[in-house]
Amino acid sequence: MSIRIEKDTMGLVEVPADKYWGAQTQRSIENFKIGDASTRMPIEIIHAFAILKKAAAQTNLELGILDKEKAGSIAEVCDEILAKKLDDQFPLVVWQTGSGTQSNMNVNEVIANRAHVLLGGNLLDETKKIHPNDDVNKSQSSNDTFPTAMHIAACLMLKKVTIPGIEQLQHTLRTKTEQFKDVVKIGRTHFMDATPLTLGQEFSGYAAQLSYALKAIHNASAHLSELALGGTAVGTGINAPKGYAERVAGHIAALTGFPFTSAPNKFEALATHDALVEMHGALKTSAVSLMKIANDIRMLASGPRSGIGEIHIPDNEPGSSIMPGKVNPTQVEALTMVCAQVMGNDVTLSVAGSMGQFELNVFKPVIIYNFLQSARLIGDACVSFNEKCAKGIEPNTATIERNVENSLMLVTALNPHIGYDKSAEIAKHAHKENTSLRQAALALGYVTNEQFDAWVNPKNMI
Amino acid sequence: MSIRIEKDTMGLVEVPADKYWGAQTQRSIENFKIGDASTRMPIEIIHAFAILKKAAAQTNLELGILDKEKAGSIAEVCDEILAKKLDDQFPLVVWQTGSGTQSNMNVNEVIANRAHVLLGGNLLDETKKIHPNDDVNKSQSSNDTFPTAMHIAACLMLKKVTIPGIEQLQHTLRTKTEQFKDVVKIGRTHFMDATPLTLGQEFSGYAAQLSYALKAIHNASAHLSELALGGTAVGTGINAPKGYAERVAGHIAALTGFPFTSAPNKFEALATHDALVEMHGALKTSAVSLMKIANDIRMLASGPRSGIGEIHIPDNEPGSSIMPGKVNPTQVEALTMVCAQVMGNDVTLSVAGSMGQFELNVFKPVIIYNFLQSARLIGDACVSFNEKCAKGIEPNTATIERNVENSLMLVTALNPHIGYDKSAEIAKHAHKENTSLRQAALALGYVTNEQFDAWVNPKNMI
Amino acid sequence: MSIRIEKDTMGLVEVPADKYWGAQTQRSIENFKIGDASTRMPIEIIHAFAILKKAAAQTNLELGILDKEKAGSIAEVCDEILAKKLDDQFPLVVWQTGSGTQSNMNVNEVIANRAHVLLGGNLLDETKKIHPNDDVNKSQSSNDTFPTAMHIAACLMLKKVTIPGIEQLQHTLRTKTEQFKDVVKIGRTHFMDATPLTLGQEFSGYAAQLSYALKAIHNASAHLSELALGGTAVGTGINAPKGYAERVAGHIAALTGFPFTSAPNKFEALATHDALVEMHGALKTSAVSLMKIANDIRMLASGPRSGIGEIHIPDNEPGSSIMPGKVNPTQVEALTMVCAQVMGNDVTLSVAGSMGQFELNVFKPVIIYNFLQSARLIGDACVSFNEKCAKGIEPNTATIERNVENSLMLVTALNPHIGYDKSAEIAKHAHKENTSLRQAALALGYVTNEQFDAWVNPKNMI
Amino acid sequence: MSIRIEKDTMGLVEVPADKYWGAQTQRSIENFKIGDASTRMPIEIIHAFAILKKAAAQTNLELGILDKEKAGSIAEVCDEILAKKLDDQFPLVVWQTGSGTQSNMNVNEVIANRAHVLLGGNLLDETKKIHPNDDVNKSQSSNDTFPTAMHIAACLMLKKVTIPGIEQLQHTLRTKTEQFKDVVKIGRTHFMDATPLTLGQEFSGYAAQLSYALKAIHNASAHLSELALGGTAVGTGINAPKGYAERVAGHIAALTGFPFTSAPNKFEALATHDALVEMHGALKTSAVSLMKIANDIRMLASGPRSGIGEIHIPDNEPGSSIMPGKVNPTQVEALTMVCAQVMGNDVTLSVAGSMGQFELNVFKPVIIYNFLQSARLIGDACVSFNEKCAKGIEPNTATIERNVENSLMLVTALNPHIGYDKSAEIAKHAHKENTSLRQAALALGYVTNEQFDAWVNPKNMI
Repeated sequence: MSIRIEKDTMGLVEVPADKYWGAQTQRSIENFKIGDASTRMPIEIIHAFAILKKAAAQTNLELGILDKEKAGSIAEVCDEILAKKLDDQFPLVVWQTGSGTQSNMNVNEVIANRAHVLLGGNLLDETKKIHPNDDVNKSQSSNDTFPTAMHIAACLMLKKVTIPGIEQLQHTLRTKTEQFKDVVKIGRTHFMDATPLTLGQEFSGYAAQLSYALKAIHNASAHLSELALGGTAVGTGINAPKGYAERVAGHIAALTGFPFTSAPNKFEALATHDALVEMHGALKTSAVSLMKIANDIRMLASGPRSGIGEIHIPDNEPGSSIMPGKVNPTQVEALTMVCAQVMGNDVTLSVAGSMGQFELNVFKPVIIYNFLQSARLIGDACVSFNEKCAKGIEPNTATIERNVENSLMLVTALNPHIGYDKSAEIAKHAHKENTSLRQAALALGYVTNEQFDAWVNPKNMI
Repeated sequence: MSIRIEKDTMGLVEVPADKYWGAQTQRSIENFKIGDASTRMPIEIIHAFAILKKAAAQTNLELGILDKEKAGSIAEVCDEILAKKLDDQFPLVVWQTGSGTQSNMNVNEVIANRAHVLLGGNLLDETKKIHPNDDVNKSQSSNDTFPTAMHIAACLMLKKVTIPGIEQLQHTLRTKTEQFKDVVKIGRTHFMDATPLTLGQEFSGYAAQLSYALKAIHNASAHLSELALGGTAVGTGINAPKGYAERVAGHIAALTGFPFTSAPNKFEALATHDALVEMHGALKTSAVSLMKIANDIRMLASGPRSGIGEIHIPDNEPGSSIMPGKVNPTQVEALTMVCAQVMGNDVTLSVAGSMGQFELNVFKPVIIYNFLQSARLIGDACVSFNEKCAKGIEPNTATIERNVENSLMLVTALNPHIGYDKSAEIAKHAHKENTSLRQAALALGYVTNEQFDAWVNPKNMI
Repeated sequence: MSIRIEKDTMGLVEVPADKYWGAQTQRSIENFKIGDASTRMPIEIIHAFAILKKAAAQTNLELGILDKEKAGSIAEVCDEILAKKLDDQFPLVVWQTGSGTQSNMNVNEVIANRAHVLLGGNLLDETKKIHPNDDVNKSQSSNDTFPTAMHIAACLMLKKVTIPGIEQLQHTLRTKTEQFKDVVKIGRTHFMDATPLTLGQEFSGYAAQLSYALKAIHNASAHLSELALGGTAVGTGINAPKGYAERVAGHIAALTGFPFTSAPNKFEALATHDALVEMHGALKTSAVSLMKIANDIRMLASGPRSGIGEIHIPDNEPGSSIMPGKVNPTQVEALTMVCAQVMGNDVTLSVAGSMGQFELNVFKPVIIYNFLQSARLIGDACVSFNEKCAKGIEPNTATIERNVENSLMLVTALNPHIGYDKSAEIAKHAHKENTSLRQAALALGYVTNEQFDAWVNPKNMI
Repeated sequence: MSIRIEKDTMGLVEVPADKYWGAQTQRSIENFKIGDASTRMPIEIIHAFAILKKAAAQTNLELGILDKEKAGSIAEVCDEILAKKLDDQFPLVVWQTGSGTQSNMNVNEVIANRAHVLLGGNLLDETKKIHPNDDVNKSQSSNDTFPTAMHIAACLMLKKVTIPGIEQLQHTLRTKTEQFKDVVKIGRTHFMDATPLTLGQEFSGYAAQLSYALKAIHNASAHLSELALGGTAVGTGINAPKGYAERVAGHIAALTGFPFTSAPNKFEALATHDALVEMHGALKTSAVSLMKIANDIRMLASGPRSGIGEIHIPDNEPGSSIMPGKVNPTQVEALTMVCAQVMGNDVTLSVAGSMGQFELNVFKPVIIYNFLQSARLIGDACVSFNEKCAKGIEPNTATIERNVENSLMLVTALNPHIGYDKSAEIAKHAHKENTSLRQAALALGYVTNEQFDAWVNPKNMI
């Protein structure tokens, strides 16, 4: 591998000749050989940094502390990053310094060196036209840029992936609520036969769960849309000019179309990640909801001959390598695995979020890695589950009807007429003698045939 | 022990003669010998049930399905329960049926039997004037009463204990923000010396954290104030009269002074506890915040001679059984233990919340047990920490001043004047030679004495 | 309330006149008003302290640093504590100093004052014959006594409650394995019909799970049986005589009949609770196992008419306050709630265990509170589940036979004869046409009637 | 993209012409668009499958149910997979069917098609010489192969990465124990000054922690080395010949050099992942230990001027993008982030492990994904932390000596001579008057100068 020499305040470092990164990125590569490709710094963070660096350069230009050529060339590289042309220039892993400084410097170095080239320079020039710290990082610190990039990436992931995914599934469930509104079926409490309801009512519960999930996400959004930028090293804003924080937040909002604001308290914004912990709590609540919904659908669809079998879900692929013709609720399984993942990620965020010290929380990379994973997985899994499973759910009418007719718990409708104790006697009699409720009720003499007709009608119990 | 015989639909049961409970409560005692006194059904749930049963009786009366005498006597017993006169009548544990049916029946039985006595009857009468199911539980099911009692108890605990506790501590932290606004101190990032800030700024971050915590709790309140009552067995409202749900929610709101409403979707309200999972997510976020704050204070107060020692916290008690004169940050320790508890409870709620099946979640008792524990502990611990620690925090001015003066990171102020690389050289020189920054700066010739005076002033860096 | 005056190194304190505790206990009561009665310091810790203090006094006597009268009277009070005569003398809560110093002092004070009385003194005497620190706590620190009490209490709870509870259930499951060995039933994978197995084989899996759980608990026992005592303040054993640690561990082993040893590294034993974290990992694994077993039994027993219904479990109590005659798998629900609790407690232990600093972990009370809760609940819940549910499990033969006969997955037996693809074709044909497998196989012409008889026999597939 | 047509029992599917995979792999790609490249099925699972398939083919050959040519060609492809020549043939993600069937089929299809080519066939041939189900998957099911691959991958990761990583760090800590055995330093309990110990003793605690961690991992190994293979579809071993299970386990043991055995109960081995949950409990305990160790080192190394500053750790890279000359404990941060990750992963495993149903746990992919991540990260992070931090730790002798000399807690040594109360008086006097202990002791007249010399000597307190 061809190399060139880069330097930082600690000295000289060999860097691959064809890469734009500099000494500090290279040191990180060598110092943190932890994990495999699955735990790289998420590319969404790099793209968020590109937005941030572009906004910062523009703000520095406006405030008169960065010249036009420099600002322009920085912005140009940022656009290249956002166009995904430089994705292979960001090799660092999650398991680096807890402030994410090394990824901030990776971005600073790549922008500085690439801008130098765009401005006609050569990577081998000892002095570059753009300095990673003095120019690209001007008015910034890792301590305010990294959390800013975290919030940008998180908000955009929620907006683009998580929320639309949940919404799509919620829409389908709401549609099913209407579609199944006349399908009277047996209810189940304690996994035991209970009084009836409609399949539509059952689905309305699922739809309501996701409405609340979306509201919970919405509720936590205000905090998450606050940006740390302008706090610089410890929250005081040292080395950032007056007005910088608000102005740069405005640029980021404009670039993303998302209502980002400048955090009113920069000390909280650097030293804690409560906003992400809070929002992940909402994602975890969503996962809890989705686990319930998916489990219900798995069980309702179980069979084909010896399960509950009240609904049919689409057959998407052969289910078994040994059992021919087997079809399984695989979308349920993918979704519930995602939910288990999110429930674990939540603990990682809580632990990491609780261990900030003084002016900086230094669990930033692991926090955003887990957050983005959860946010993406929930969104993607909802879309997949929706498209390949939920949309195709149909009732198995025959089974549903048989179950509701046989149900002993229809006896509940007799309570207001003959009291709980006699009603219980009827149900027990029917169970013991394996007869219908009607037969038991008449045998015990507690109601007449006409009264039974009038009082025990599943359609009136919903 | 003197006994009497009670019966239910399964037969006869011996009950202590002096207790009001009936057969089903006794069965639960005998069937669930799990845990010790620390895991009893929380008394707050019993009290919430008393509110609920009173409101239900009143509603049934209004709707013409319960006579005045019965409704009146039920209400009278409920008032006795609320006056804590019957606390020893509720012996059941958390580890019972997952619907809480046995605690609902415990309440129904005690009210029925006690009302019977109040109406002139005798506990030994074979037939009671009030029936636990047909009268006390009229228009209700365990499946809608227990979740209603959960929400009532949860909301009242939050209102009476959690929120005021956090608010008190938040108030003190805000006061300290003002009080310490001129105390310039060294900042620390990565637990390493960084640029300065004021002690007031540091505390403003803590105060901001708790503001957000309160807001997160507030955000989740709407969902939690929705009541399941009226859904009865499976959410359809079977055996409850028209208008019952809204009316009874109104009575509960009136009795508690809390804006409870009737849940718009009763299926969600019985089958899930997403509202409690969501709210506990907010409590957990609060715990994460409090852990950070408490840890910082522990470290800032460490010493007395070989720690960080920048603040002094009150000496409340001898700290050691072997080391004479030792004083420890015990309030910090109590608070951080509470935070660890809440972080674990959150997982219990998530697991339990995710495992509902069909029309009912049957992890109700464990969910509310953990929820109320978290809510109480956070509130109590904030009050204790506030009174015995936070209020008495004072700066150790001598240490603070020495630290800030010695700090090498004041060099950051030179960046805009001489650039990052030369500034680094100065800091490294001072560190290596164990000199002051000024000495190093002058020795390297990068600034004059006057420039140093003008540029490096901690008071200007905040 | 009548009071008397006690003093400690910080001054005078009013104490209830009829209590044996002294100034430091009282300070803790007043300084830590956190939580309710459910979060008291577990009485098992107090009893473990009594064993410890008795062993310590005996060791101090043997080593010539405590006189016979003092040692004897200390031992006498310890015996009173162990006889539960003084349970009301230990009012402190979990949420106190993280070292448990206050509970250690509570024990020291009660022993000193009670011994003073036993030796003829009066609680109002200004000087007591026994000093809580100099005598009762001799050769000890809270820092080594509290973790020692934790290990004693934990080991005894495991031995007396947890292990016997799991063993009893394991024994029943093993018995069922044998009892059900000829009951051929349908298997289910992905909650979908699969190839058959016997009900006995299904239960053998459950029995195996609990064997492994017991082994995991056994594996972690060696670490947990190591005692910190002798390490005193920071692990060095300052103020404890030579040989003290081994000798006192021997006494504790003798007093309890449990093979306790002296921890080889006292620094680890004070600064960490890895032994408890590790053992709780085994308890959590047990909870994971029990959750699976209980869920299976819930689902197998579901019905009575519209569930899986392949087994019958005992009817223990009326299941519903509204649905007459309903019976629910309540023991399953209690057990699964316990499992959810243990899974959360595990996180509390991990968080608390990870946050030790330097020479002492100061999350001791919350760690042991959660540990003992988990250990007790698992043991108790296993016994309850075993007695009230597992022992009474019986197969529903009719349902089981119908299910296995209808199963399309018996087709798997044809794979070796006609290949996976043709077998799949048969299963799909039968499913689509709603016929038996045999009909489908013959219709497609892939096997003869005789071949089908010879190849497709559930009894040969197990 | 050039395509070819493949088919399975559900019909025709378009597959990239240059890939070896078949219809079922392609269906999975299309049905599960969940997550990004970071959540692919771990390549270690694919490699474990190659070992398994080779062993299975060999066993089938020996048992006379697979011919030599087929067995040979299957083995040949397995060797190619193990040589990483086919890594790009396994595109599936974690979020697929919960049994991992699709990855099993991916392996089956790639082996079948590649073997067909090796045997002279063409990918476009309609019939292939090797059938993915009938040949490659012979005597197997996804239900026993996937858990077998999980155990193979897990054991090899532990052996190659996790255990050596912990051992290396443990070795360094043990070395430091010896190296620092004479460095007397102040102890700290409750983060407050306490009695002294040596730095070597402090490190001996860390070394002991990792010894126990290794022992915990060792303890859980027996269960994890048991293989499900031979259980086939539901544990009964349908379609696998007699003796297959033991023989194939023997081959896997031989191929890997790891003492794998055949699971004595195949029902447990398919339906649960308790072995992985149990082992991950040990990994989580290790993470708890490492969190404590790393945090201590972070705090001991804090400064350079205003922290604890008792040790020096290596300077590896510039620490700040804004604060010149700043150096941070970055290896500590990477390690503690890993620990937070592992603590969260543990919850994912517990949730996923607890939700198996009947004969199969269908959270297999998410379980092994998290397990392998934890196992790799702990190993890698220990190596990194060891090489770049632990090895280079050196005491800051000047600070250590100053701290121990100033310590008020040396007063503890006076307890046995003058009692706890007078000792406390001395310490408080010194603290209040800001004098030395000696000055206070003499001023109060409790000891003579000579007694002080004789009794208060840090070197005698360790």
